[in-house]
Amino acid sequence: MLHDAQVIIRESIAAVLPDEAVHRALSAMQLPGRVTLVAIGKAAWRMARAACDHLGARIARGIVVTKYGHSEGPLPGLTIIEAGHPVPDGNSILGAQEALRLVSGLTQEDAVLFLVSGGGSALFEQPLPGASLEDIAAVTQQLLACGAPIGEINAVRKHLSAVKGGRFAAACAPASLHCILLSDVLGDRPDVIASGPAAPDASTCADVAAIIARHGVRVPAHLLPLLRMETPKSLCRVETVVTGSVTALCDAAAAAAARLGYTPLILTTTLSCEAREAGAMLASIAQEIRRSGRPIPPPCAVIAGGETVVHLRGDGKGGRNQELALAAAKGLDGLDGVCLLSLGSDGTDGPTDAAGGVVTGASAQLCRALGLSIDDALARNDAYPLLGQIGGLIMTGPTGTNVNDVAVLLVR
Amino acid sequence: MLHDAQVIIRESIAAVLPDEAVHRALSAMQLPGRVTLVAIGKAAWRMARAACDHLGARIARGIVVTKYGHSEGPLPGLTIIEAGHPVPDGNSILGAQEALRLVSGLTQEDAVLFLVSGGGSALFEQPLPGASLEDIAAVTQQLLACGAPIGEINAVRKHLSAVKGGRFAAACAPASLHCILLSDVLGDRPDVIASGPAAPDASTCADVAAIIARHGVRVPAHLLPLLRMETPKSLCRVETVVTGSVTALCDAAAAAAARLGYTPLILTTTLSCEAREAGAMLASIAQEIRRSGRPIPPPCAVIAGGETVVHLRGDGKGGRNQELALAAAKGLDGLDGVCLLSLGSDGTDGPTDAAGGVVTGASAQLCRALGLSIDDALARNDAYPLLGQIGGLIMTGPTGTNVNDVAVLLVR
Repeated sequence: MLHDAQVIIRESIAAVLPDEAVHRALSAMQLPGRVTLVAIGKAAWRMARAACDHLGARIARGIVVTKYGHSEGPLPGLTIIEAGHPVPDGNSILGAQEALRLVSGLTQEDAVLFLVSGGGSALFEQPLPGASLEDIAAVTQQLLACGAPIGEINAVRKHLSAVKGGRFAAACAPASLHCILLSDVLGDRPDVIASGPAAPDASTCADVAAIIARHGVRVPAHLLPLLRMETPKSLCRVETVVTGSVTALCDAAAAAAARLGYTPLILTTTLSCEAREAGAMLASIAQEIRRSGRPIPPPCAVIAGGETVVHLRGDGKGGRNQELALAAAKGLDGLDGVCLLSLGSDGTDGPTDAAGGVVTGASAQLCRALGLSIDDALARNDAYPLLGQIGGLIMTGPTGTNVNDVAVLLVR
Repeated sequence: MLHDAQVIIRESIAAVLPDEAVHRALSAMQLPGRVTLVAIGKAAWRMARAACDHLGARIARGIVVTKYGHSEGPLPGLTIIEAGHPVPDGNSILGAQEALRLVSGLTQEDAVLFLVSGGGSALFEQPLPGASLEDIAAVTQQLLACGAPIGEINAVRKHLSAVKGGRFAAACAPASLHCILLSDVLGDRPDVIASGPAAPDASTCADVAAIIARHGVRVPAHLLPLLRMETPKSLCRVETVVTGSVTALCDAAAAAAARLGYTPLILTTTLSCEAREAGAMLASIAQEIRRSGRPIPPPCAVIAGGETVVHLRGDGKGGRNQELALAAAKGLDGLDGVCLLSLGSDGTDGPTDAAGGVVTGASAQLCRALGLSIDDALARNDAYPLLGQIGGLIMTGPTGTNVNDVAVLLVR
C-alpha cells in the first residue's frame, strides 16, 4: 500500500502544478505591450517560467520572490530572490523593495503581471515607515504560537505592511495590473491569498484590534498608530484570476486512487481543525470501514483536503501533515490493509524538508519495537524525527506548487 | 430542521432502551432457582425493571444503584440507591457494601443476576482497605482533568477498588454469576464497561504504573502498595452477555433520518477525538456537502458515534456533546439548511442536566446578535449557558439507557 500512496502523492502534485493554469489564464487576458512581471510565493518560480514561455520577449523586466530552495535556476530577464518562510527575513524586504522600484514610474500604457501563490505573506514584505521586520515577526510569532487562524495573522500583518492588503496594487497605478493567483487558502479569496497585495482589503482596523485583544498579543506602542491606518477598500484597473486550489488537489488524489482501484470518497475540502484530531477522526473512520464497510466499502480512499492547524505545545520538529499522520497511526494500530498519508502540496510541511507523513496499521507496532513513543512525540510537536525513524516521512522536495494539503486514507 | 432533529433524538433513544435487550438475554440464560439481583449504572433502574417483569418472584432480593435522578420509583423487593456521577460519593460505597452483603454467604445453588451499564465505575465503589473514596476521587479527578481516556482512568480505579476489575465476581463465589451488560464503551469489552466488576481484568499493575507516570498523576504514598496488588485474571461460573451499544444507536439515528427523507451516511462508531475538533470537522463536511454535494448529496444525514473527550481548560459548565455542537456552530455559520445535533444517549452530558446540543447555520449569527462569544465559551468549557440562551440544549431528562454518544449532521 505504501507504493500506492507514493503513486497518489506523485500524481496529485503533478495535477496541480501551475504551468497549465498560467498558460490558460494568460490566453484569456488582454495585456498591453510592455509587461513588468512580479511573481511571489512558493510557486513563484514555476508560475514565472510558464509566463516567460507564454509571453517571451514581451516581458520587459521582472522579479521572482520565492522560498529558499524553491528556485530552479535563472529565468531570462528576471531577478530571482529567495527569502524566509514562514518567518520573513531581510530578503523578503529586498524583494518587495525591488518590486516596488520596478512598478514605480509606469504609465497608463504599461502592464504589471502579478503571479501570486501561497507563502507570499512571508516572502514579500515591506513594513510601513515606523515599523520594522522584527516588529512584524514578533507579532506574527505570537499569533502563530497561539494557533490563530492564518486569516487573522494576515489581517494584522496587512495593516503593518506597505505591500499587503491592496497596497502593492496601489503602488502599480496608473499601470494596469493583471493578477494570476494560485490559491492555498480555504475559500480562495484574493484578499487572503498571500495577504492580498493586489486585492481590496476586507479586514478593517477594528478587526485587527479585535484579533489582538482576543489572542492577548503584546503590541509595541509605536505600532499602534500604524494599525489605525486603513488599507485600500477599492482598486482600479486590476484584473484577477484565481486558478488552482485544494479542490483540484483533492480531485487529483481521488482520480489517482480510483486508477489504483480504490473507490474515492471526498469528505471535505475545507478541513481546518487541529491536525492531530483530524488524524484521530480519520483513523476512527478506518476502524469503521474495516469493521462494517461504512461509510464506504473497501477498497476505498477517504479524502480530506484543507489546512489543519497546530497549537504548539513543545519545541520539537514537525508540521501539520506530519502530526496528522502520526496521530492517525495510534488509531490505525493493528488494522490490516490500511494506509494514511497527509501531504502539503508545496513539499515543505512546517519548517521541515518533508512534505508530510505516511503511516499504516503497522506503524504503531514498529514504534513500540523501536522504543519510540507516539504520545511523547505528539506532546513535543516532534513528529519529524519519529516518522523519519519508521520510514514515515514523505520527501518530495519543493514541488513548484502550493494549493494546501490533502489527507488520503486508503483501505484495501 | 430542528423538528427533524427532535424526531431523530426521540427515535434514536427509544431504539436503545434496554428493556427488550434484557428480556432477550434472560430468555437465553439458565438461572438456578433463587436469584439475587444487583443492577448498577445509569441504566440500572430500567434494566432491573425489565428483569423484574421477566423473572417475577424468582428474584429473592436485590439492589439497584444508579445516578441521582435516574430512579423512576420503587421496584418490588429491591433496594434502590442513587449515588454520585461522574465523581463517586458516600452512596456509591453504600450501594457496593449492600451488594457485597447480599452476595456473601450464597451457595453453589444460588444465582446472582448482575445488570451492568455505563456509569457503574463511579456509582458502584468500595475502596480497598487502606484507601478512601477521597483518595480515589483525587486520582480520578487528576486523570479526568488531563483528558486521560476513560479506559486508563478505569484501570487505575480498578486497582484501588474491592469491587471493580473482577473483584465483585470473586465475592459472589460460589454462586453462579449471570451478567447482562449494556455497553457505553468503544469495543464493548466486558472488562471495560463499568470497570468490569465481573470480568477478568486485562489491566495489570504495570499498566497502572505506566498510566500514572504518563499523565504525571500525584499518588499518595499509602496507595502505592495497593496499586501493586493484582486484580483477578480468571473467573469461574460467570456468564456474560453484552447487549446494546453505540452501533445500535448510530443505526437507529440512521433509520430515523432515513424515515424523514435524509440519506444516512455513518462515518464511524468509534469517534474518540477531542469533542470540539470533531465538531469542526463535521462542519467542514457540511460546507462541502452544501458546495459540491460530497461526500453525499443532500438531503443527507452524516452520522458519527462514539465518545469524544474534553481536555478541561476552563471551569465552565458543559459536556462533550455540548462542546461538539457549539464548535460546529462556528463552521456552519451562514450555511442554509444545515443542522447538527450531538447527543449523549443517557440524557446527561457531563455534569449537566442536558443530553447534548443542537445548532444550525443560523446559530452563530444568533450568538453575535445576543453579544455571546462562541470562542470565549469554548475557551472556558462553558457551552451550557450559551447553548441555553440560543435554544441549543437538548433536554431529555435521564433516558434509562446509556450506550454512548451520537452526532448527526443534517443537510437538506
